Amino acid sequence: MYELILLRHGESQWNLENRFTGWVDVPLSENGIEEAKKAGEILKANDLYPDFLFTSLLQRSIATAFYCLQVEGRGWIDVKRSWRLNERHYGALQGRNKEEVRKEVGEEQFMLWRRSYDTPPNPIEEGSPYSQDKDPKYEFVPRTESLKDVLERLEPYWYEQIVPQLVENKLVMVCAHGNSLRALIKKLNHLSAQEVQQLNLPTAKPMLFELDHDLEVVSEKHLEL
Amino acid sequence: MYELILLRHGESQWNLENRFTGWVDVPLSENGIEEAKKAGEILKANDLYPDFLFTSLLQRSIATAFYCLQVEGRGWIDVKRSWRLNERHYGALQGRNKEEVRKEVGEEQFMLWRRSYDTPPNPIEEGSPYSQDKDPKYEFVPRTESLKDVLERLEPYWYEQIVPQLVENKLVMVCAHGNSLRALIKKLNHLSAQEVQQLNLPTAKPMLFELDHDLEVVSEKHLEL
Repeated sequence: MYELILLRHGESQWNLENRFTGWVDVPLSENGIEEAKKAGEILKANDLYPDFLFTSLLQRSIATAFYCLQVEGRGWIDVKRSWRLNERHYGALQGRNKEEVRKEVGEEQFMLWRRSYDTPPNPIEEGSPYSQDKDPKYEFVPRTESLKDVLERLEPYWYEQIVPQLVENKLVMVCAHGNSLRALIKKLNHLSAQEVQQLNLPTAKPMLFELDHDLEVVSEKHLEL
Repeated sequence: MYELILLRHGESQWNLENRFTGWVDVPLSENGIEEAKKAGEILKANDLYPDFLFTSLLQRSIATAFYCLQVEGRGWIDVKRSWRLNERHYGALQGRNKEEVRKEVGEEQFMLWRRSYDTPPNPIEEGSPYSQDKDPKYEFVPRTESLKDVLERLEPYWYEQIVPQLVENKLVMVCAHGNSLRALIKKLNHLSAQEVQQLNLPTAKPMLFELDHDLEVVSEKHLEL
């Protein structure tokens, strides 16, 4: 049996301010740091000590993993990071207040952008302060993404980088984002586009997946203290 | 020209309590966290953005690098960690108060253990609470080490892991410890056993070394704000 821990980052400054974040590199809030440490306490209480860490390139996932693993004295484990685990690019919505957008475009369009599987928001303008097109750390910067786009860029990374660690029987932790983890769980559980709309992950609550040797989910649970 | 940043970790709890630390995995003090952030400000002020990070397996070096790089928004760079960059193993002195040891053995023996190149302290007892012989993360745990022993275990790592990143023209940062960095600087500057006795590195003050293509030091400086 392979074991996989999925961890959405703790609360960020913009979760707090109710703004669309996407690829904007917003730090954790003070509360988010505490949530990350609590995730470490939860792993410890469940006797789960990760051997290998994956994060996105965004500091909220990097910092969440740092504070979480520090609680367990496991900051030293091997780590790989990739833009392929980044949050969904929210296009022209990045940086905008969610309530304002909801009022502007109406509930239906708002929920379509937030929860539909294959409808991306409008693309972000080049040169927007909330665009990453000049950031040299990225080999690829989308102008917008649907959840489907996220799964398509995440899937090769899953097979090329994450699965090889699982099959070596490493306890793998993926510390990433609401939508990159939703995309991964859609794949693991063979969810339909409809089903994944209902899936919402709380911040910094580790989930444990057990996979069989065909990478099929045998069990999944939200871990508790 | 290759560029190499050396950074000793910030103040740890036991620096504060004046105890021999060695391989005991002591966290940074609050002040040490602030020092680490200041190291990031110093790098930024000098327009130095590391591409590749090396740390020891000890949390004080891991956390120092985290807080330092976070200031620059560079937490995402590739990292490798190794016990070969760990602090010198202080043998039976690990965990002991420095002042007490000095009174017990006298100034001469005390300074010999602290500063001599090839005199290790007495070996630590098996099963001591300050020994790491049961820690599964280590492939090798010494019972004590001289600075010479440190250089011998560090040298292969320098050539196998660090130099290959330098020759790819990566700006490499090595975040490690007073004695592992003294050993490395001894090698880089061809210091005698006598000369390295005088070398003492302040906590969390980044140093920049420029090396030519034969890995000879062309310049070195302590970086300032």
